[in-house]
This record gives sequence, structure tokens and C-alpha cells, in this order.
Amino acid sequence: MMLKGFILCVGDELLTGQTLDANSPWLAQELSAQGVTVVGMAVAPDQKDALIDAIRHAAAGADVLIITGGLGPTEDDLTRPAIADLLAVPLVEDATSLRDIEAFFSSLGRRMSDANRVQAALPRGARAIRNTCGTAPGIRARYRDTTIFALPGVPHEMRVMFAQTVIPEIAGAGGACCYATRTLYTHGIGESDLGERIRDLMARGRNPAVGTTAKQGVIGIRIYARGASGEEAQALLDRDARELRGRLGNLIFGADDERLAAAVAGLLREKRRTIATAESCTGGWAAKQLSDIPGSSAYFLSGIVCYSNEAKVNLLGVPREIIERHGAVSAEVAESMALRCRALAASDYALSITGIAGPDGGTPDKPVGLVYIALADAAGCDVSRHLFGEFRTRDEIRERSCTTALNRLRLKLLA
Amino acid sequence: MMLKGFILCVGDELLTGQTLDANSPWLAQELSAQGVTVVGMAVAPDQKDALIDAIRHAAAGADVLIITGGLGPTEDDLTRPAIADLLAVPLVEDATSLRDIEAFFSSLGRRMSDANRVQAALPRGARAIRNTCGTAPGIRARYRDTTIFALPGVPHEMRVMFAQTVIPEIAGAGGACCYATRTLYTHGIGESDLGERIRDLMARGRNPAVGTTAKQGVIGIRIYARGASGEEAQALLDRDARELRGRLGNLIFGADDERLAAAVAGLLREKRRTIATAESCTGGWAAKQLSDIPGSSAYFLSGIVCYSNEAKVNLLGVPREIIERHGAVSAEVAESMALRCRALAASDYALSITGIAGPDGGTPDKPVGLVYIALADAAGCDVSRHLFGEFRTRDEIRERSCTTALNRLRLKLLA
Repeated sequence: MMLKGFILCVGDELLTGQTLDANSPWLAQELSAQGVTVVGMAVAPDQKDALIDAIRHAAAGADVLIITGGLGPTEDDLTRPAIADLLAVPLVEDATSLRDIEAFFSSLGRRMSDANRVQAALPRGARAIRNTCGTAPGIRARYRDTTIFALPGVPHEMRVMFAQTVIPEIAGAGGACCYATRTLYTHGIGESDLGERIRDLMARGRNPAVGTTAKQGVIGIRIYARGASGEEAQALLDRDARELRGRLGNLIFGADDERLAAAVAGLLREKRRTIATAESCTGGWAAKQLSDIPGSSAYFLSGIVCYSNEAKVNLLGVPREIIERHGAVSAEVAESMALRCRALAASDYALSITGIAGPDGGTPDKPVGLVYIALADAAGCDVSRHLFGEFRTRDEIRERSCTTALNRLRLKLLA
Repeated sequence: MMLKGFILCVGDELLTGQTLDANSPWLAQELSAQGVTVVGMAVAPDQKDALIDAIRHAAAGADVLIITGGLGPTEDDLTRPAIADLLAVPLVEDATSLRDIEAFFSSLGRRMSDANRVQAALPRGARAIRNTCGTAPGIRARYRDTTIFALPGVPHEMRVMFAQTVIPEIAGAGGACCYATRTLYTHGIGESDLGERIRDLMARGRNPAVGTTAKQGVIGIRIYARGASGEEAQALLDRDARELRGRLGNLIFGADDERLAAAVAGLLREKRRTIATAESCTGGWAAKQLSDIPGSSAYFLSGIVCYSNEAKVNLLGVPREIIERHGAVSAEVAESMALRCRALAASDYALSITGIAGPDGGTPDKPVGLVYIALADAAGCDVSRHLFGEFRTRDEIRERSCTTALNRLRLKLLA
């Protein structure tokens, strides 16, 4: 039998549009991947009667109801009392949960405040879902024919608890129709050009469904395959993924959660090469991305953020006359930054970025969005010039600069 | 009388998590700004009975129901027949809408296909909402005490039609009620401790409504004020904001879109002070945040990412024997990093961060999450030790490290 699921989010901040709900789409993907048909999603306010009504309505059509949010320690956290009222049972303190919360605080060297004690309360007969990443335990309860899982709204806690508790209970229960999904990420091609190269795969009604989304120069290609079994869906998905990799080659840098920096990190490790960075307009963002990856000390040696001209001269050793003759945003300075950075760090590669991120500082000759990126290695140094567009925001220009720089390193490592 | 609103989105692609619903948050903001209290949001599938049930439930608590999606020309566009069935009336072709759709296609030099003809059908007694940007007209209908506005799911079309049709009908109808909202951001206090200090302001049913949300050590306090006029709402909001600032003082670093780095930047500019950074485990993230702010060259001089011990010694000049005696993650190394960084950059302040971001590299003595932060100025150097928790992700530990470091600089600038 195919399970039906419902996702209910709790929080006034969602109903005023102040906060975006990232939990529901994630849960929808996870439930779908398990073969659960999500029949509805809803958002309920921090108001007990309305919340009880929302839970009752959500449960009516669903075998599994996932609730997120409303489990915090404050007055406006009402998921616990709402479930208790719906089940017509009192809230009782759960000794294990209380110990967990106390232990959580002592692991941080703090004492649990009285306010947190309420988080250990559970509707009588319900089961606590252990939270190993925060204070709020979740709740597993049965209401008529529905299993309710109430989880915290903090995405990281919610995801871990979902994986540990909900997945084992629903896995395989989905029955007849299964899904498999993957997103391949590309850099170096526009969305419409990409669309023309894979038009046949994107045809409406085709299985797998293939679609694209663009974000700051990175185009994602989503594959969504349906099958009578998980294996069948997976096989269809794998066939399309192979076809896309065959057509697009090195334009594809990763899949699903794999960021560009992770792809670069994988290649640096595999080839036992090291990298150092020298950044002006990106201000450390490229270094941040390289060090996002666990174990980055194996390949990432150092970064210099030489935001001022003084720093370019004093920290990095760029000759002052090059800056004076060509300006800080120039191919010559980018090259010198990369070469000096490589020499100082004694790394295999060095990346440098200098440009005008805006919103001010542009001139007709050197507009906002002009960025030079240099990549130095034992053989020398290549500089590329980019115009990311005056209409873009500072964040966008900085993000595209980092992506372009990391992708140049990736292609060099693949060459 | 205060109007209650409900937002219902139609589409299977939302229930599988393939597509993010950007319409609902936008509508929530617009309705709130008009004084409409959004009492719920929901997503319904492309399945007629479920959709009818969702519309009925949504309408039950609302004066105004906004439906988006399901108005296209294909088989799975079911908003039209669902509303007709709910109202127990037939669908009838609307001559004006048909002419509009034909005119839309001829303006593109194309002929209307038969499939589009169905888009001119309306539940009998309902009114068409003209679509000047696409083919699908909207529907305005009354169901019991609820006014239903069904609009296309295409964001651009939906927004224009909402502004042209819904706004004039609800503007001021909230009557008597307008809203003003602000979020104050704090760092340096836990959510439950904060909740205890402002418990009276967070009391249920109070106006303004005050609630808290936590994200990586930053607690937001949302104030949501209602008044008979915009001025009254604003005055109530200002009174609460003053009260909160009085009670919480320097714990509050900013409001609404103001990030911590922007607050720090404002203080550095105001006091004409400069900063440089030396980062190990955060890998450039603090520098990135300081340079996020336009015009940061006025105060941010340079950053050094000394990820390896070699870089700490060679780039920064940390004495090798300090690293060997105390380890790279130690108060002594943090202090030396900050002092050397300040000397090299000739800045007023220097911040250093060294720690174990994980997931690997922890020991019983120095667990994952142990971070030292040093702040040097002309008077000397202060080091603080933090345990951000072994259970946290690498990203979380790095983000909390940067936030804590920037907040130390903020408090120093305020002292």
C-alpha cells in the first residue's frame, strides 16, 4: 500500500512572509524518495486552537504527518500542548528527555534554565524522539490512523532526527511507485545553450523528467525518475545521468550536494596537489569555500586577503610600481598576486582574484563587474578577464568571481 | 474589522519538493502589509477532490482566500473545475476572456490552440480577473463568507493581477487595522534566558506580538504590532523596540536586514578605526563577512588565512616554538596570531580565530568545537575560549566562531 504523507510547518514568521520555509521542500523530497505520496503541505500559526485544527485536518488525509517547529522553550512554542489537547491527554515530563537536555547544556559548560524544562514534557502515551544536536526532543504520537512525528524547526536538527527516526519507520512502506532524483551541476555554459543541447531529454511527459535551474552561473540539471521499484527508478535515472555526462563532459562538476569547492578538493587530493589564494575583491570568500570542505588542510595551505594596496605590497610583495602603472584591478596585478602567492606559500597552484565588486568604484574603463583571475603553477601563470555585469549586486559579482576561479582550477587539474 | 486571509498553492511539483513556492511568502508579506492576518497557508495536489477539500478547509477560517496555480490549459490544471464543483455550478465560457486569450496569442503572432479555450471557462456567477501578461484569466468568486481570488502560478502574472485586483478590494478593508513589524537581532544570550527576560512582552494575545527565533547563536526578536492606523502600529512597535533595547542593551546588534558585520562596519567607520584578520579554522569567512559590506576598504585592511602551521610561521610570523609547545589550537597561538596580524597590517584592531571545526581532528583534551578567539588593540590582547559543541557541523562551528569574533569586536568598539 502506498503511504500518504502530510507536512505541517508551525510558525507565525512563515505566515507574515518574514521567513522562508526550507523544511517543507526538503521533507517533500525525502518522503517522495521513500515512495510516500505527499498529499498536502500547510503552515499553521503560533496559536493553539488554530494549530489543533490544522493538525486534525492534516492528519485526516495522511498515514504519516510530519510537523516541524513549535518545540522551543518559549511561550509561543505550542506544538506540545496542541498535540496533547488533540489526543485529550495531559503533558507529562519525560525523565530521559530531561536528562538529555541537562546533558546537552552541561556539554556546553552551561546550566539548563527552568524554561528549557518544559521541552522535556510529552503528551502522555507519546514517545520522545531523541535530539542529539539540540535541546528540543521530538514527539512520535498516534492519532486515529495517523502517525505523527513532531520535529524541531531548526533544519539541521530536523534533518538528523528525520533520518534517524522517520526514515526507518517509513522505508519501503511506500510500495508501488518509487522515485529517484539527482541534480547535476554545470559551470561554463548558459541556461538556454544548455537547454538546446539537451532539449530531447527535457521533453514534457518524458520519464525521467529533466529540468534546469540557474543560480549565479551554476546551472543545475534535475533528473526525476519514476519506476515500479526503487531499482527501476534508479536505473532510469542512471541512464539519463550517463547520457548527460556523455554530452556535457567537463561542463558538469558535481551532483546533488557536491559543491564546486568539493569537486576541486577531490581533484587536489587525488593528484596530491596544494593550493593557496590571494584575494582582493572577493575578500576571503574563495578561501572560505576551499576550507568549507572537511580535511581541507591536506591541500589548502594559506590565503591572503589583500584588500588594500598596502596589503598587496606589504603582505604579498606585489611591486608597487605595477599597481601604480596598471591599477590594482589589472591583468598585471592579478598575475603578480598569483605568482607572489605561490612563491610565499610554496604551493603547487595559486589563484588570485582582483576586481571591482561595486556598487561604487566603477569607471567607464573599469566598470563594476570587471574581474581578473590568475592561476599560477610551475609552468607559469594564466590571467583571464571577466565582465560580470554592472547590473549585478556586489554579492553576485563576488560569488561569480569565486565560482569562475575555482572552476579554472578544476579544469586545470583535469587537463 | 480585521480580515483573515489564507493562501493556497496548487501543484504536484510543490508536493514532491521539486519546485520552491515563492508565491506564498510574497503573498503573505503583501497581505500582512494590507492589514490582513494570514491565518494559514497550504499546498494542494493536482487532484480534484483533494483540491476541493483543501479549498473548503482554507475558506472556513478566512475572509479572503488567495489560490495560486492550476489555471493552465492542461489536464492537470484543476482550479477552475474544483471551484465550480465546490460552488455546485457549471463552468461556462466567458466571451470577454476568450477574446483576451485570442488577442494575447495574436499579439505574439500566433494562433490560439483549442487547448487554451478551456482557460476562458468560469464557474457560473464568478467574475474573470483579467490577465494582461499571459493567457490564464483569474477567478473571483464568493463561497459562503469567503471571497476567493484564484490567480495563475506564474509569479509575474500573479503579482500584477494581485496588485490590480486584490489590493483595491482589500485595501483599507482590514479597516481599522494596520501592521508594522521589525526584528531585533541579539548575540551573546541563549534563547531561553532571553525568553525569561522578556516573558511579559511575549505574553499570548498581547499587542505587539513578540516572538523569538534562533539561528547559529543569533537570536532574532520579532515585533509585530497592530494598530487602527499605520502611525499607531508604528508607535506601538517603536515603544516595544525601545523597551527591548533598554532591557537588552548591547546584546542587540541590529534590526531587520542589518547583519552583524554591517553593525561592526558602522562602528569602525564612525570611530575611524581599522581591522585586520588572521584566521585558521574559519578559513577566511570572517574576512569575507567584513568585506561583504560595500565600502569596506575604508576599515578592512587585510586578512591572512593561515590554515597550515607553516603558514602561521611563514606568513604571520607566529614563533614555531609556541605552536610546538601549546599546539595550533591554543590561547597562546591565538594571541600570537592577533598580535602579529596587527603588527603586519598596522591596523587598530586585529582578530584571530583558531580552533577545531571538525568533523575530524578532535581529542579528549581538545574536542571538535573548541575555538580560541583573540582581539588585539593598542592596549594589548584578550583571548577567549569557546566550546561550540562536538555535535555541531563544521559549518555551524565556523559560523558561530565568526559571529562570536565579530561580536567581540563590536563590544570592544562600544566600550
